[in-house]
Amino acid sequence: MIRISIDAMGGDHGPAVVIPALMMVATRRPDVRFKVYGRSEVVRPELDKFPKLAAITEFIHCDVAVRMDDKPSKALRHGRWKSSMWKSIEAVKTGDADACVSAGNTGALMAMSKFCLRTMATIERPAIAAIWPTLRGESVVLDVGATIGADAHQLIDFAILGTAMARALYGMDKPTVGLLNIGVEEVKGQEEVKEAGRLLREASMMSMGYHGFVEGDDIGKGTVDVVVTEGFAGNIALKTAEGTVRQISTYLRAAMSRTLMARIGAVFAKGAFNTLKEKMDVRKANGGVFLGLNGIVVKSHGGTDDEGFAAAIELAYDMTRNRLLDRIEADLDLFHARHPKSSLRPAAAAGDAIE
Amino acid sequence: MIRISIDAMGGDHGPAVVIPALMMVATRRPDVRFKVYGRSEVVRPELDKFPKLAAITEFIHCDVAVRMDDKPSKALRHGRWKSSMWKSIEAVKTGDADACVSAGNTGALMAMSKFCLRTMATIERPAIAAIWPTLRGESVVLDVGATIGADAHQLIDFAILGTAMARALYGMDKPTVGLLNIGVEEVKGQEEVKEAGRLLREASMMSMGYHGFVEGDDIGKGTVDVVVTEGFAGNIALKTAEGTVRQISTYLRAAMSRTLMARIGAVFAKGAFNTLKEKMDVRKANGGVFLGLNGIVVKSHGGTDDEGFAAAIELAYDMTRNRLLDRIEADLDLFHARHPKSSLRPAAAAGDAIE
Repeated sequence: MIRISIDAMGGDHGPAVVIPALMMVATRRPDVRFKVYGRSEVVRPELDKFPKLAAITEFIHCDVAVRMDDKPSKALRHGRWKSSMWKSIEAVKTGDADACVSAGNTGALMAMSKFCLRTMATIERPAIAAIWPTLRGESVVLDVGATIGADAHQLIDFAILGTAMARALYGMDKPTVGLLNIGVEEVKGQEEVKEAGRLLREASMMSMGYHGFVEGDDIGKGTVDVVVTEGFAGNIALKTAEGTVRQISTYLRAAMSRTLMARIGAVFAKGAFNTLKEKMDVRKANGGVFLGLNGIVVKSHGGTDDEGFAAAIELAYDMTRNRLLDRIEADLDLFHARHPKSSLRPAAAAGDAIE
Repeated sequence: MIRISIDAMGGDHGPAVVIPALMMVATRRPDVRFKVYGRSEVVRPELDKFPKLAAITEFIHCDVAVRMDDKPSKALRHGRWKSSMWKSIEAVKTGDADACVSAGNTGALMAMSKFCLRTMATIERPAIAAIWPTLRGESVVLDVGATIGADAHQLIDFAILGTAMARALYGMDKPTVGLLNIGVEEVKGQEEVKEAGRLLREASMMSMGYHGFVEGDDIGKGTVDVVVTEGFAGNIALKTAEGTVRQISTYLRAAMSRTLMARIGAVFAKGAFNTLKEKMDVRKANGGVFLGLNGIVVKSHGGTDDEGFAAAIELAYDMTRNRLLDRIEADLDLFHARHPKSSLRPAAAAGDAIE
């Protein structure tokens, strides 16, 4: 049995999307159980539509809902201890749930997750990992925006976290890892990336195949299973790719409706276009995973529909099932046993990014 | 008459691609004249195939050719004063050419361009600008990899340079400018981007419509005419978008050949696919423009074909025709007249990136 806590008030559509998504997951993953947090007057009516779902769900009313435009600091101030977002995270801390899913605003969710669950002992900063569809399948890309900037040791943390996630999700023994870099030779400023590369190569960990540097176009190729970068570049890469997919979809739609011949062709090729649409469906890879905390929190895209939210829940389910946290802790222990903290972290710890 | 100097030895294919490209441009831009630099034994035979081209071209033999994998420092040491790359840049310095085009390696070309042409008086660092096809047409994106990291004042330089380029290329009076940023609120570390935004808003320049922050997915939407960012994130965004285009092309080809129905559809939709292919053609936007130097240098993609190299030359031609350098200098003078250097550059100038 896997128990997922759900913040029903997050996202652009709230319970109207969240509750049908739970029903989807309940059908596909029969041993799932839910704890749902939200305002009774909007969640109850939705839940009542699915008696089967209600039977495996515990609903807990919360007065406060964090708004999509609340700043993290404000959300923490007003929503701590009592909001549906906080309560769903807290359920993971108390052991009442194995993982938490929310479509609420990223900054608030990260701030509350850090405050409630705390980062793991040897991790300085959590990261947000995205699942990126590639020509070879899927890759894990992190950090995609938890913090800006990362030193060599934080990049190594990200590599360990991402590797554990790839192992938990894809059943790989030794995922390959690449450090995102730019191709220009002899450019100053990438010292932390170079240093991280050197350390990863030396570490030669059993659970990680360090590949070397990769460039932006390697992500979509699937050159490596785990792409490691700091959050600013990672976020820009992710959003740029999403924008490019939308751009090409627009071109394709326009091209296929412009002439009669094209429209006839589109009828014949309907099946093929559906295959393509599925490949390009960003909903299927929905879910930013917060890594490095003492608990699993998955952030769903705020604007997603029920299928997208279901994908985020299933991600949380799969990672729990495959003991993500145990794997992370084992890898961290192994790495730090060989590289005592004193030698690895000469500089003072960088401050947390989200205040 | 516009005179372009050409490094015929750059790129993966050298003169075999470069010379036919010159012929294409000569047909489409009758008032163009070329100065071509390279090794006589490989360039001459290609040039002899096009008598019309030979008539408007001056060929200069150079013993040395910079290799695609030469490090910038090595290229400078061995190629300065005598390589085809150096000579073609030098022609711009001496006034024998209006602009230079090379498909040689980026680091070497930038190092030589800086050494030979020098950066403009009020510019600390040059940038590489890319032309990005968008849903609204085209945008200028810079820096896509000249240097890593940029402070607020360098970002403002990039904004001024990019604006002048958009005005020269698209005949706009007041291009809109956005600073690339990530959407997470209250995150530390983007101080230089915030500071640049504040300064650009205050400056309220006649020739620039400052829009505010944009995110990765705004680039493809064409939200602004000029997207400003530091070179690490810019390079990763560009390569990631290229990778995504290639990824979707692969999906599309596979989908359209999988079933008989799809193959029939593909026949009918051939025209539409050609339109799409043209939209997605990265060759048409070929050419990284080096901005901030006392001369125009365009870097063509090393692996491009003749059509792609021709696009890079035409970019150099159009910018010369539309007096890019004059526009940049006028805008810089205007900006610095209002913002005396002493107040604008409190910190010590950052070192150049490419040694």
